[in-house]
Amino acid sequence: MSIDSAIEELVKVVKLNISVQDMELENAAGMICAEDIYSPIDLPPFDRSAVDGYALYSEATSSASSNNPIPFKLVNYGSVLPSHNNAVPISTGQRIPEGADAVVMVEDVIREGDIIYVMKPIPKYGNVSRKGEDIRKGELLVAKGTIIKPQHLAALSAIGMTHVKVYRRLNIGLISTGSEVVSPLQGLKAYEQGFILDSTSILIFAVLSAYKFMNVNWYGFVKDDEHEIKAMTEKALNENDILIFTGGTGPGESDKTFKSIVEMNRDIRIIARGLAIRPGRPTSIIIVENKPIFLLSGFPVAAYIALYEVVLRALYTLLKIRNELFIEVPARIVKRVYGSAGYDNYLRAKLFKCNEDLCVEPIMLRGSGILKSLLEANALIVIPRNVEGFEKGEKIWIKIL
Amino acid sequence: MSIDSAIEELVKVVKLNISVQDMELENAAGMICAEDIYSPIDLPPFDRSAVDGYALYSEATSSASSNNPIPFKLVNYGSVLPSHNNAVPISTGQRIPEGADAVVMVEDVIREGDIIYVMKPIPKYGNVSRKGEDIRKGELLVAKGTIIKPQHLAALSAIGMTHVKVYRRLNIGLISTGSEVVSPLQGLKAYEQGFILDSTSILIFAVLSAYKFMNVNWYGFVKDDEHEIKAMTEKALNENDILIFTGGTGPGESDKTFKSIVEMNRDIRIIARGLAIRPGRPTSIIIVENKPIFLLSGFPVAAYIALYEVVLRALYTLLKIRNELFIEVPARIVKRVYGSAGYDNYLRAKLFKCNEDLCVEPIMLRGSGILKSLLEANALIVIPRNVEGFEKGEKIWIKIL
Repeated sequence: MSIDSAIEELVKVVKLNISVQDMELENAAGMICAEDIYSPIDLPPFDRSAVDGYALYSEATSSASSNNPIPFKLVNYGSVLPSHNNAVPISTGQRIPEGADAVVMVEDVIREGDIIYVMKPIPKYGNVSRKGEDIRKGELLVAKGTIIKPQHLAALSAIGMTHVKVYRRLNIGLISTGSEVVSPLQGLKAYEQGFILDSTSILIFAVLSAYKFMNVNWYGFVKDDEHEIKAMTEKALNENDILIFTGGTGPGESDKTFKSIVEMNRDIRIIARGLAIRPGRPTSIIIVENKPIFLLSGFPVAAYIALYEVVLRALYTLLKIRNELFIEVPARIVKRVYGSAGYDNYLRAKLFKCNEDLCVEPIMLRGSGILKSLLEANALIVIPRNVEGFEKGEKIWIKIL
Repeated sequence: MSIDSAIEELVKVVKLNISVQDMELENAAGMICAEDIYSPIDLPPFDRSAVDGYALYSEATSSASSNNPIPFKLVNYGSVLPSHNNAVPISTGQRIPEGADAVVMVEDVIREGDIIYVMKPIPKYGNVSRKGEDIRKGELLVAKGTIIKPQHLAALSAIGMTHVKVYRRLNIGLISTGSEVVSPLQGLKAYEQGFILDSTSILIFAVLSAYKFMNVNWYGFVKDDEHEIKAMTEKALNENDILIFTGGTGPGESDKTFKSIVEMNRDIRIIARGLAIRPGRPTSIIIVENKPIFLLSGFPVAAYIALYEVVLRALYTLLKIRNELFIEVPARIVKRVYGSAGYDNYLRAKLFKCNEDLCVEPIMLRGSGILKSLLEANALIVIPRNVEGFEKGEKIWIKIL
C-alpha cells in the first residue's frame, strides 16, 4: 500500500476531536492556531516617523540645497505643526504631527541652537511610514491551522492580543516492543548477552518532542508477549490520542505486536499492514476506536523515515496544518541511484555547495539499521516506485532534514 | 562597521566561561555537546540478521533453483548452527549463529512443518548486517560543539550511554526600552494615546526560546531614563551571561540606552555603535566586564535580522558551535534589486517552485517596521555592500528562514 492511499484511508476513518484553549502569546510559538485572526486596525495606526529626526512640511524644503540651506525653527513635539517654518524633533515610531508630512534625518541637517538648516528637498512622506502601509484593517494575519511562528506573535502583539486560541497539545504514546530490545541503562554487556540496546525510541521521542503541539508520553519497553502488549495498549490508549510502537512489526513469528492489537476486544480497523516504502516496509497502521496506532520498524533509520513520511504526514493532514513539513530544494545528484520496483525508496543524503549549484550525494549503505547514515545525512532523496532511478548529474528535488 | 569585524572584535575580548553538566539523553536534544564522543564498540557488535527469516550456511544453497528446491531442517535458535543441512529461525536484529553466514527471508521459502525449501542461492552475508559495518570502534560519533540532534541521541544510546556532557544553558536577559513602547496588555487604546504596542521583544523572545541551549529571561519594559536603564542593566547583568536590549538605540536625543550603559561605573568596552547593515543600522554592541550587551532596533524586522546576523552569529562563534545557523540554497531572483552603498542589505523574500528551479521574490516594502514582510517571508536575500544589486533572473544564494 502506498503512503498516500494509507493516509487517505486514515483521514476518512479518523476524526480527531482536539479541544481549543486560550494561551498567552509568549507560550504559543509552535502551537497550532485554532482561529482565523484578522487585524482590527490599520498598522501603523497613524503616519509615523521611520527615523530619528525633525518632522516638517515637505513643500517648504523644495528649494533647499547646500547653497541655499533653509532654516526651520524647532518647536516642542505636539499634535500639530504650528507653521511651515517650524520643525518638530521626532523619534523613530512617533506619530507625525498634523501639518507635517515628512521627516528629515538628524544626520542630514545642521543644527544651531533651536534652528536647523535643511540642505536638500525632502519628498512628501519622506521617512514617513504611512498609516496602514504595513497591515490593513481586516487583513488575515494568521489562518486557522497555522503552526504559530515568532513573527505571528509579533503581529498579534501589535494588534493588542495577549492570548490566542490554539488546539490543546496532542498526546502521543510511545512504546518500544521486542523481547531482544533493552534499555541503554543495561549497558554494553547487554550485547554480549544477545540483547540490543534501544536507540529507536529515543530517536522518535526526540524528533516528536521538537514539535510543541505534541506531548510525547514514553512508556518504555514491552516484551513480545500478547498479554503484555494488549495491557500496555489499553493503558496507553486511555491516556493518548495516538500511539506509536517501535519494533515488533516484522513478518516473523516472534513479532506479536500487530497480531495482539488486532485481536483486542475493541472496534478495530486495519488501515495498512506494511507500506510500499524502503526502508520502512513493516510500517503498519491500525485504528482502535477512532485512535490511530502506528507500528514502526525497530530499526532507527526505517522508523525515522516512516515517522516523517507516514506519522507526521498523517498528523499534518488530520490536523489540517498549513505549514510545510519539509523544505524541498533542487540539487544535482552526483552518483547514479536505482530504485526498487514497487517501493518508494528513501535514500539518506548529504547536501553540499558545488560551484553555483547545490549537489547531493546519496549515502550508500545497506540496511535500515545504519545509524551512521542518519548522523551524516542532511537531506532525503526519494525515488518514487514508478521511477527506475536517477542518472548522475540529474537535477532532482530533495527534502532538507 | 561590518558584522564580521564586530564579531571578530567581540571574540577577541569576550571569553564565555560556561560550565559543563551531565544530562540524561532524553533531555539533551538541542543542547551543545561539551565532549568528543567516540564509539567504544563496533556496531552492530556482531553479525546480525537484517530481516526475519532463517539463518543458514550460504554455500549449501548454491545449487538451489525452483526446479531444485533444497530442504533444510529447522532447529531452535542457538549460538551454533548444528550442521550445513540445518536452518535456524531468526528475527531481525538477532545475532547470526556461528557456522551460519546468510539469512533467507521468510517470504522466500516454502515451509512444511520443520522443513524449509530454499528456491534460489543466497549469497554469502546475504541479509546479514556485518559487525562494525554501521559504526567502527573508535569512530567519532559526536564532536564537541555540536548542537545535539535526535540522531545523535540514537547513536549514543546504541553505545550504552544514558548521559552526555553538555554546556549549561546560557542565560540571555531581554529588555525592551523606549518610553513610547508599552505592553500589549495596554490594548489598542494605547495607539490613540500615542504609544506603540510592543511586538519586537516577543519576537526576539520566541526566536531565542526555540534554541534549547539558551534560557531567555524577559525583563519587560524600561523607559528612556538613565537611572532606570542603569538599574535594570545592573540587575540583568548579575543574572545573565548576555543581555539584549530592543529599542532605544537610534541617534536621536530621546534614545538613552547606549549612552546610559557606556556611562556605567564598570569596565566598559564599545565594540560597535551602529553596524553597516540595513535594516539594523542602529545595532550596537557593548562589553561590560566580559558580558556582551547587544542593542537592537526597536523595529521588529530590523531586530529580527540583527538577531540572526549579529547576536546568533556571535553566539555561535563564541560557543564554537559546529552546526549551520542557516541553510543556504541557490534560487533565481525574479525581480531586479538594488543594494545601498556601504551597507549589507537584507531583503525579506518568498521562495517558490518555478518549473525545475527554485525562484525567489523579494518582498518590496519600505522601512524596517514592516511586520507583514516577516509574516510572508521564508527566505532572506543578502546584497553585500560591495555589490550594486542583482539582475532579474540571476541565480543567487539565499538563506532559508
